[in-house]
Amino acid sequence: MSRVVKLAVIPGDGIGPEVIAEALKVLDAATASSDVTIDTTHFSLGANRFLETGDVLTDADLDAIKAHDAILLGAVGGVPGDPRLVGANIERGLLLKLRFSLDHYVNLRPTVLFPGVASPLANPGDVDFVVVREGTEGPYVGNGGAIRQGTPHEVANEVSVNTAFGVERLVRHAFAVASARPRKKLTLVHKTNVLVFSGALWQRTVTAVAAEFPDVTVDYLHIDAATIFFVTDPARFDVIVTDNLFGDILTDLAAAISGGIGLAASGNINPSGQFPSMFEPIHGSAPDIAGKQLADPTAAILSVALLLAHLGLSAEADTVNTAVTADMAARTGEARSTATIGDAIAARI
Amino acid sequence: MSRVVKLAVIPGDGIGPEVIAEALKVLDAATASSDVTIDTTHFSLGANRFLETGDVLTDADLDAIKAHDAILLGAVGGVPGDPRLVGANIERGLLLKLRFSLDHYVNLRPTVLFPGVASPLANPGDVDFVVVREGTEGPYVGNGGAIRQGTPHEVANEVSVNTAFGVERLVRHAFAVASARPRKKLTLVHKTNVLVFSGALWQRTVTAVAAEFPDVTVDYLHIDAATIFFVTDPARFDVIVTDNLFGDILTDLAAAISGGIGLAASGNINPSGQFPSMFEPIHGSAPDIAGKQLADPTAAILSVALLLAHLGLSAEADTVNTAVTADMAARTGEARSTATIGDAIAARI
Ligand SMILES: CC(C)[C@H](C(=O)O)[C@@H](O)C(=O)O
Ligand SMILES: CC(C)[C@H](C(=O)O)[C@@H](O)C(=O)O
Repeated sequence: MSRVVKLAVIPGDGIGPEVIAEALKVLDAATASSDVTIDTTHFSLGANRFLETGDVLTDADLDAIKAHDAILLGAVGGVPGDPRLVGANIERGLLLKLRFSLDHYVNLRPTVLFPGVASPLANPGDVDFVVVREGTEGPYVGNGGAIRQGTPHEVANEVSVNTAFGVERLVRHAFAVASARPRKKLTLVHKTNVLVFSGALWQRTVTAVAAEFPDVTVDYLHIDAATIFFVTDPARFDVIVTDNLFGDILTDLAAAISGGIGLAASGNINPSGQFPSMFEPIHGSAPDIAGKQLADPTAAILSVALLLAHLGLSAEADTVNTAVTADMAARTGEARSTATIGDAIAARI
Repeated sequence: MSRVVKLAVIPGDGIGPEVIAEALKVLDAATASSDVTIDTTHFSLGANRFLETGDVLTDADLDAIKAHDAILLGAVGGVPGDPRLVGANIERGLLLKLRFSLDHYVNLRPTVLFPGVASPLANPGDVDFVVVREGTEGPYVGNGGAIRQGTPHEVANEVSVNTAFGVERLVRHAFAVASARPRKKLTLVHKTNVLVFSGALWQRTVTAVAAEFPDVTVDYLHIDAATIFFVTDPARFDVIVTDNLFGDILTDLAAAISGGIGLAASGNINPSGQFPSMFEPIHGSAPDIAGKQLADPTAAILSVALLLAHLGLSAEADTVNTAVTADMAARTGEARSTATIGDAIAARI
């Protein structure tokens, strides 16, 4: 019996369309001989769409996207400083709006230093961890405001909102992820000594949920100390659970130590399945190199592997991961175009 | 004419007293042949004091400290998880209370990779930058709160407060620091695409103050991207200006890439001179290694150099920096006790 997966594709801006073309090539190859058919719908969203129509993400767009089983996104965002984009904030209006509207409370960001890949660290060790970042709360909620803007008496506030509901479901998911991994270790990263109210909620929740997962070892690091270990001993980490902003910071640093953001994939996941989950490379739209076939599509391709795993197609996901691993091990340092890398990975499937 | 400097000394907890003993040794040596007399008053503050008396920092302590010209602090904080300290929060009640009460709005944290010092980075390059971190606003203000604590309906908020007054004085100070350095480059680090209100205030302020410093080159990085460059190209940075929390995170990472927190000094500065400024290593009290002469006092000694420079004793500050640089270049990797390192540096003066 054949299965049809309805996939919403948002190539976006800059290098987004280039890396998505390769990701779809690999997705095709990985599902070619299976009984799964991927039925894609392309959505033109991002800075270009805004410049053409003035829309960032309409309710109609959102409804159409919701009617899909999953989303694959390239990258969104225009040229920094483009005067025509002033006030548009594509990141908040599109990317964050999707994460919040589709209740993507698990922002899953695995970090693996693949054999053959160079790290800026002299002795990176065996890097293989996953950051389980909260995706719908914290300082990202947009509950900020300012008074007397532009005057010497301006006050600009940002509110980080953390709920027991939101923290607990994320923490429970992170424990489940840790419990399914060989090392079964979970590190909470926060700043409990300064952010005492949200910190207490996170700490208390981790302690409570830990009782349900006696096989998982738990520890805690302040965000500042965590960045130290990311460069001195990243191999110590297995699963990290953290809030939206700390997760944002840690995952860029994680990408940097494991070969760069050209390799870092992510899933914005709604585990209940109520809304489609969204898979995207963590890199941005990099307008400076767009259209030149200079971008590495590997992060987008690894995001396809996360997508396949999320859909329960673990054999297909493994195929993609194996092909990527082989490609990385064979890299010689010679520059290859975006399409050449995509072709090489697809050919290994 | 001889000058008397009244110095409040807060050795604190854990390794604090050990590193402060060496810092004072070096301070003595550096001022021995000058016309400056350092008149020290020791304050017993920290977890130990709390355990003995129940006090963290009384009004009387604060008044007594205010009557000094400067403060030298070791480290504060008890053994993590000590049940007798639950609810005490020595960090907020002592360290942050000092920074806020004494209006230490410039948190100055230089990062230099000294010749002979190992970095976890394979190719660190020429690392020499300074983070000018805001010290009295942002997410550190303690304007958080929670409702329905401990129930499934808890909501815990933290408010980041940013004022034009607070941001502008800090940014102006950072530009002055940049203008006095050879490369004259200033990088604002924030997260303007998500924290749109505070981000707009910071960005606008930097743009406005830049007009007063036409010799300074300005750029901007999101906090997540900044952590990438800290490990891939730290030499690109000269002066970084950032908020309280981002500065906290970046300076631990900065310490990690430049030889560790055993070498990282800081100044909590009130440039107006209304209140005494405070100098401290950025490391914590490390109770696990306390009393064993295992701590590196170099960060505390470099904090003495910052203290001397702040007091206008730049020749004495240079002496300390030169002695530390020479000691570092001569390090063989052999373990030395806290006092041995302090003696060696003092002997070079
Ligand atoms: C573009 C930006 C809003 C986004 C974030 O901060 O979450 C990005 O940095 C990421 O990590 O996916
Ligand atoms: C101890 C803690 C409150 C402090 C901070 O967060 O500022 C420390 O990490 C630092 O950087 O001086």
